[in-house]
Amino acid sequence: MQSFIFHNPTKIIFGNNTSSQLGENAKYLGKKALFIYGRDSIKKSGLYDNVVKQLNDKGIAFVEHGGVKSNPTLEHTRDGVKKVKENNLDCIIAVGGGSVLDEAKAISGAAGSNVDAWDIFTGKETVKAALPIGTILTIPATGSEMNAGMVITNTETKEKLGAGSPHLFPKFSILDPILTYTIPETYTSFSSVDMVSHLTESYFTHNGGWTPIQASYVEGLVKTIIEATARILKNPEDNEARATMMWAGSLAWNGLNTAGVGPFIMACHTLEHPISAVYDIAHGAGLSIVTPSWLKFNLQDKCPRIARFARNVFGVEGKDDKPVAEEGIKKLREWYKSIKSPTTFAEAGINNPDVELLVRLTMKAARMKNIQEELPETMVRQIYKDCL
Amino acid sequence: MQSFIFHNPTKIIFGNNTSSQLGENAKYLGKKALFIYGRDSIKKSGLYDNVVKQLNDKGIAFVEHGGVKSNPTLEHTRDGVKKVKENNLDCIIAVGGGSVLDEAKAISGAAGSNVDAWDIFTGKETVKAALPIGTILTIPATGSEMNAGMVITNTETKEKLGAGSPHLFPKFSILDPILTYTIPETYTSFSSVDMVSHLTESYFTHNGGWTPIQASYVEGLVKTIIEATARILKNPEDNEARATMMWAGSLAWNGLNTAGVGPFIMACHTLEHPISAVYDIAHGAGLSIVTPSWLKFNLQDKCPRIARFARNVFGVEGKDDKPVAEEGIKKLREWYKSIKSPTTFAEAGINNPDVELLVRLTMKAARMKNIQEELPETMVRQIYKDCL
Repeated sequence: MQSFIFHNPTKIIFGNNTSSQLGENAKYLGKKALFIYGRDSIKKSGLYDNVVKQLNDKGIAFVEHGGVKSNPTLEHTRDGVKKVKENNLDCIIAVGGGSVLDEAKAISGAAGSNVDAWDIFTGKETVKAALPIGTILTIPATGSEMNAGMVITNTETKEKLGAGSPHLFPKFSILDPILTYTIPETYTSFSSVDMVSHLTESYFTHNGGWTPIQASYVEGLVKTIIEATARILKNPEDNEARATMMWAGSLAWNGLNTAGVGPFIMACHTLEHPISAVYDIAHGAGLSIVTPSWLKFNLQDKCPRIARFARNVFGVEGKDDKPVAEEGIKKLREWYKSIKSPTTFAEAGINNPDVELLVRLTMKAARMKNIQEELPETMVRQIYKDCL
Repeated sequence: MQSFIFHNPTKIIFGNNTSSQLGENAKYLGKKALFIYGRDSIKKSGLYDNVVKQLNDKGIAFVEHGGVKSNPTLEHTRDGVKKVKENNLDCIIAVGGGSVLDEAKAISGAAGSNVDAWDIFTGKETVKAALPIGTILTIPATGSEMNAGMVITNTETKEKLGAGSPHLFPKFSILDPILTYTIPETYTSFSSVDMVSHLTESYFTHNGGWTPIQASYVEGLVKTIIEATARILKNPEDNEARATMMWAGSLAWNGLNTAGVGPFIMACHTLEHPISAVYDIAHGAGLSIVTPSWLKFNLQDKCPRIARFARNVFGVEGKDDKPVAEEGIKKLREWYKSIKSPTTFAEAGINNPDVELLVRLTMKAARMKNIQEELPETMVRQIYKDCL
């Protein structure tokens, strides 16, 4: 186990109908909020009216900032920062999935620190202060509701970059499983893929020695997510399964699975980001495309861990690690297929991906993160070609 | 899964030699500290001098409050409160195991809220304010370093009661595995027993439906604790195992295994507290005495859960739950024996326990917590007699 600091101060308010608790929690954040959300789905569901009523009831003024895209853009983020400054807003209420929450953080950090948002992502600037954020989560997947990270896409440069700061933990996040009943099948699946990827990135690549706490934590959550996804796809209103999925999403990326495991790389996320940035597909869909191939090309190096995963998650039996690991990769691909998440570019409707563009963007990000040795260009190209 | 609020703001600073980071963290707590610790072991180890130097270096004045007992007493707590008031102290630095940390919290809550400490435990008063606490943990076991609970013994009435408040989360806790190398074998074992009990109390008794996240979290941690304990008993300076044990202790009782599982009772803890209060044995030793018997007398009712535990923790095989569960109880008892934690009163050197006194104290506590239906007097008496 390696040294670490774990400090996650977000207050989680979890349970059916907890969305009614927004107002009483929001009143401690400020008096003039930016109310940020995505498409019109929250208007159709009644959640929008519910939020507006609670803010009004508590005397919290607000400026709306709707229309966040599912890969949130720098342009829309800059618009949000402008609204915060022009209206002298003092807090942010974010209602939506990971994209909405990520953009809320980017706006909060850029406005609070008085810097251009993109400079935070390229590392030119750091977040020194931020507006307090309260959230209602509607799509569990990214874990953004209980972490300090965010990802934004620069549509001009086609770059999709992540950043973070301890200032950006939401003050509170409301997790109401009932709000997730209407998530379509495809997005339920993509969300599961994303959660599993958050758990396995460090599991496969960390170098922190003997870490049975974190390994069994990951394995338990992955098994649970697989089981809950199957239940939801059978019955989208399975409250127990929706609740389980919602809390699993937060636990999958709130710092616990990586605390103490030592340095690791986000290999599959780094390979995926250019795909969703260029082709605007769901992040989870991109992850199920690249992950089996990444595992295949890292089988030599990561064999014992992949084999452990195969045994403890998929129940693969066998003494020798290599065949067990290979069977594990096969089982993972089969799981993706069973929940209809694509495992090739073609399955995602991308028939002639610009492999060289993807390689270029990946290597640019890899160099920025200084992980080009673990993710060498030759292998990156091989992986993309393997995914055609 | 049930509704819950999870909000654990304690900052964990984990790693070898992190005890040197006390000063830089303590300086944000206050200017005049109560420095609380237990026996002289921290003086022998050099930790005392290290702490004093760091406080001096940061200009933090302090009043000492040493001599905390391993079942911390109300009397000593009241002394601490007096010191805080007389010296107008504004924060607490606690260096020790769970007992020291628990007493620190009791002092913090009583002094901060200006009430008698015991009234917090009997429920007459609640904690409305508290002095900020920073800790260096030296014995991982109770999880007190990352939770808001505490247990104090009233030596006059022989009552050992628990209480808690969100105000009592330590602001930071330093977990330095090297400090735990000198914990004697017996205490290493008792600590493991306590951690496992924290994990299993809710696992066996909650009524929150389908909770695979929490169940697998518990099972993974219990297996890890069993494995790490064996390594430590072979080699007390096994850094990986000591580190694992230290973090496991925090994760075993920081709210995560109980979040969402619904109401549960601390059955074995309630049965144990009178034993250590009356006979002044280690809490863990008392737990290994009562737990197998409590399981035995609850086999009918909790059979599927005990069987799941037997299968997933001890690898017991079999289709029918009952024999599997029975084998699981046997395996648990064997584990206690293998690490030399007593499984009867006699093994703990208590040859003629006053069963009726223990029953009376347990039922008093059970009624206070309103769990007398799940812990009926007849069963309590049977359990104690079974443990002779």
